[in-house]
Amino acid sequence: MKIYFAGSITGGRDDKDLYAQIIKILGNFGIVLTEHIGNVNLTSQGEAAMGRTPEYIFSRDVAWVSEADALVGELTVTSLGVGYELGFAESLGKPILCLYRKAEGRHLSSMITGNIKLKIEYYQNIEELPAIFEKFFSGVKQIHE
Amino acid sequence: MKIYFAGSITGGRDDKDLYAQIIKILGNFGIVLTEHIGNVNLTSQGEAAMGRTPEYIFSRDVAWVSEADALVGELTVTSLGVGYELGFAESLGKPILCLYRKAEGRHLSSMITGNIKLKIEYYQNIEELPAIFEKFFSGVKQIHE
Repeated sequence: MKIYFAGSITGGRDDKDLYAQIIKILGNFGIVLTEHIGNVNLTSQGEAAMGRTPEYIFSRDVAWVSEADALVGELTVTSLGVGYELGFAESLGKPILCLYRKAEGRHLSSMITGNIKLKIEYYQNIEELPAIFEKFFSGVKQIHE
Repeated sequence: MKIYFAGSITGGRDDKDLYAQIIKILGNFGIVLTEHIGNVNLTSQGEAAMGRTPEYIFSRDVAWVSEADALVGELTVTSLGVGYELGFAESLGKPILCLYRKAEGRHLSSMITGNIKLKIEYYQNIEELPAIFEKFFSGVKQIHE
């Protein structure tokens, strides 16, 4: 199982520690292609600060989405890139799991909540995620078997 | 010419007055399907506050993107929904113009800047937009003629 994990970079790195924990848990279900999303040294300047060109990053990420069996996105920190990846992955027919932490004054886009092709799971604590992933990936396995 | 204008709603309404001005200028080039994006009474709670379901909003917006000859997005306020719309519109082969106002400490995603299929125009003042639109839509017309 190859997993594309999507989280915010230039949209803001408030959840970077959480991303690292999620990627660790996802590692129990398959290979996470995008481990760098959880890199606590990666800032909102993105990989450009590491000397990588946008064209390189885009081509690599598009190839990774294409290669992945499923996409898991953490959507709480608003991100343009994550939104793009969801639209692109959906156009390829990839199974998609969206994670979101509800809070007062924060609203998830209707382009996500109104889309029946996206599986949305609301959670508050990371302890809830293994059961959520178990359920989601058992469905993904069925698609590919 | 039918134009889908994409701007932030749940991502934040800081640019709502600007969206209204952009939509007015776009009206010189065709019919803007998404005039509500510039509605100054529309808050970050989105159209849900008007009693519309996410499923209705999603289905309508997907139909409008499909119907549009081109998509124009203002990307400065980070938005998950706009990102999704870009990915979806690209999968349909729509011509896409991305508008962005550069500023210190703000970074545009590599999923946008590294994507050669997106036309990105950086600007600072609304006075620059008519010339940008003139150039972009003359290319769109050529595609459809």
